[in-house]
Amino acid sequence: MSASTALMTDRYELTMLDAALRDGTASRHCVFELFARRLSGGRRFGVVAGTGRLLGLLRDFRFGDEELRFLRDAQVVSPETVRHLESYRFTGSITGYREGELYFPGSPILTVEGTFADAVILETLALSVMNHDSAVATAAARMSIAAGDRPLAEMGSRRAAEASAVAAARAAYIAGFGATSNLEAGRRWGIPTMGTAAHAWTLLHDTEEEAFRSQIASLGVDTTLLVDTYDIRRGVELAVQVAGTGLGGVRIDSGDLPLVAAEVRAQLDALGATGTRITVTSDLDEYAIAALAASPVDAYGVGTSVVTGSGYPTAGMVYKLVARQDAGGGWVAVSKKAEGKGSQGGRKGAFRRLDGGVAVEEHVEIADGFETLPAAADVAGSRALQAVLVEHGDIDPAAEGTQGVVAARAHHLAVREELPVRALALSKSDPAIPTVFSDAGDR
Amino acid sequence: MSASTALMTDRYELTMLDAALRDGTASRHCVFELFARRLSGGRRFGVVAGTGRLLGLLRDFRFGDEELRFLRDAQVVSPETVRHLESYRFTGSITGYREGELYFPGSPILTVEGTFADAVILETLALSVMNHDSAVATAAARMSIAAGDRPLAEMGSRRAAEASAVAAARAAYIAGFGATSNLEAGRRWGIPTMGTAAHAWTLLHDTEEEAFRSQIASLGVDTTLLVDTYDIRRGVELAVQVAGTGLGGVRIDSGDLPLVAAEVRAQLDALGATGTRITVTSDLDEYAIAALAASPVDAYGVGTSVVTGSGYPTAGMVYKLVARQDAGGGWVAVSKKAEGKGSQGGRKGAFRRLDGGVAVEEHVEIADGFETLPAAADVAGSRALQAVLVEHGDIDPAAEGTQGVVAARAHHLAVREELPVRALALSKSDPAIPTVFSDAGDR
Repeated sequence: MSASTALMTDRYELTMLDAALRDGTASRHCVFELFARRLSGGRRFGVVAGTGRLLGLLRDFRFGDEELRFLRDAQVVSPETVRHLESYRFTGSITGYREGELYFPGSPILTVEGTFADAVILETLALSVMNHDSAVATAAARMSIAAGDRPLAEMGSRRAAEASAVAAARAAYIAGFGATSNLEAGRRWGIPTMGTAAHAWTLLHDTEEEAFRSQIASLGVDTTLLVDTYDIRRGVELAVQVAGTGLGGVRIDSGDLPLVAAEVRAQLDALGATGTRITVTSDLDEYAIAALAASPVDAYGVGTSVVTGSGYPTAGMVYKLVARQDAGGGWVAVSKKAEGKGSQGGRKGAFRRLDGGVAVEEHVEIADGFETLPAAADVAGSRALQAVLVEHGDIDPAAEGTQGVVAARAHHLAVREELPVRALALSKSDPAIPTVFSDAGDR
Repeated sequence: MSASTALMTDRYELTMLDAALRDGTASRHCVFELFARRLSGGRRFGVVAGTGRLLGLLRDFRFGDEELRFLRDAQVVSPETVRHLESYRFTGSITGYREGELYFPGSPILTVEGTFADAVILETLALSVMNHDSAVATAAARMSIAAGDRPLAEMGSRRAAEASAVAAARAAYIAGFGATSNLEAGRRWGIPTMGTAAHAWTLLHDTEEEAFRSQIASLGVDTTLLVDTYDIRRGVELAVQVAGTGLGGVRIDSGDLPLVAAEVRAQLDALGATGTRITVTSDLDEYAIAALAASPVDAYGVGTSVVTGSGYPTAGMVYKLVARQDAGGGWVAVSKKAEGKGSQGGRKGAFRRLDGGVAVEEHVEIADGFETLPAAADVAGSRALQAVLVEHGDIDPAAEGTQGVVAARAHHLAVREELPVRALALSKSDPAIPTVFSDAGDR
């Protein structure tokens, strides 16, 4: 297996490169922008995630022997282009929203600058990572808001392809989840891992009691016992009988949760297990979590819905050429006109306007060419949204790896506080704040 | 980066193993079954995909130094269990539906036999792979049926996490797509790759004409030109002007496709480019493809909807303990009773009953214990659905790698012919054929 990420790329990126190397346009300096035209699913805000992962994958975006052999043998590009790719590494710059930041329609989430040859071939990988991770993070943030102070764990690995599951655990953690069941997410990204037991554990043993006794012997009385394999009422009774009133928790994975949670709480209290926590894990999404707000539930485990973006598994972001040099070296803002898919040309600076600490507008300044965009301090009552992530090929190490995850989660939880109250509702709506474009030259 | 897949696993698999090694149940022989309780989205059939990928990942399901260090440092399991995992490799057996096969509710898609210690820890990885790949393949098969003889290409890499994109391209190909835009899917799985050009290609050039001329110089006159960057009518005119009437194709990525396709066809014909093909690629799913059946479209490119399972990104399969040894070494069929999530205990044999070559029933024989299940020939007018994929740890090489993909696609296209006509409709419904369970002892 190759560790290169370079072929996680649509074929046309390389055939365009091939043609551009032939006609001389490959060396034109270009500005590509990654943004979302709209928020999928009538979401009121989006959460940027994947940035740190993308930067790591960018390090491995090199064409090794296996990749070059494939391109040569399959005649995807000319021998000259194969030679060009041998020494390829991205030497351009990327400015972008910090990971964990909120975004709105038209927010310039990533701005990639470099020659056409440098920048065009990153399109597929950048979109793959950002679209997936941001979709999960956006759904996760809604669940985290709905859960309030109750802990949330991501347990959806089995409902996502194996590598996506690791990325999804990471995105959910950035957006407010407290832990994941996925061990690789723990190893690779430093995310706290958790788990209880499966129904197979109970079924493996000759009796439910033996299963409970063994789990407690191994994990201690503070463990969480799964009580719904046979009969919940009998399971709870047995759990307290075996563990005593100091039992850490019980997990319920089936049934009408508000009803069952209330019954189990009453039963636990009657048995004296007043400190035993109730974790629920059955088909939860943000709406089910919100509906359980008044129920005596202590923790949520969310599977399918968080790893699949709760109905919207991709954020629908696009990667568009917005400015380039012309034959004479001057800068031209470019945009396509395709029906319903137009784009806004020009390099952009982005700021979130705040009023008393509350976000009121996504303010995007457009520069036609090389004009200097305003710095954060220049725009009163605004917070600058972009940071330099890659400068002439050098990747900011603080945005990568486990430290990148820690920073992204902290940033997300901080900026979420700026959201207006109406952004927190779960129903479909327009974006919580408008995106306003202005020409930098007009200020 | 580690190439091990062993930590793509929920934490509770390993804590259950830990407790089972302590209490002696780890050595009990077990039968786990991977199946779907229902077909998500009111689909009329499901398509099994991922099997060959899973077998490859199973080879890498070993705990190396990095994995063991993490488990030790994070105290996920006891030092004794860490030592047990050092030498872990799966030495059990897996019987399963051939990749590309159809499945229905309760079909025993995979049957994993081994000690509890051997088999329980494969749950997460097996479900991750099969749930994702089967969801994509099921959606892809519906699109392939809707497209009829017109070629279909998978172009959704940018709307799926980077590794899932490769798996999705593979699953779509197995289910009838003819090509993918994803180069890694070409390299790793031998899938034909294709591509046209992006809007950025046109925008990079000073004029649309220069972009078209350059693409033709590089890729030849048989290439497909993207004609909707500015104005489709003008784009088509220019395309034929530049390429001549021998132009291979034009791609339309926006607008009201039935209307636009008809206009473009008329315009191409009027210009004499009667052999120029029309490829459409804008937000297609199986319904949009079906709606274009009467339009003059020559090929479809499908993105988001195929890689996200067209609204159902996971197949919802589960992995359940269905039989095990008891303390005395006898076999016990086991099943849970949890509300709405019950399972059917016992090892199973599966056959598709056919009447005049048309599938009429998914017939599942249940054995309580070690009884021999009937062989294919024993059940008249039936086709046996299970094959041995792994025997005492030895993986069938024919099910893996590129040859596995070729076999799976051929098998899928063959068995799809057995579907009754009503299975081919796209609307939500019950499964096309019923699943009937019978006790092997009763025959």
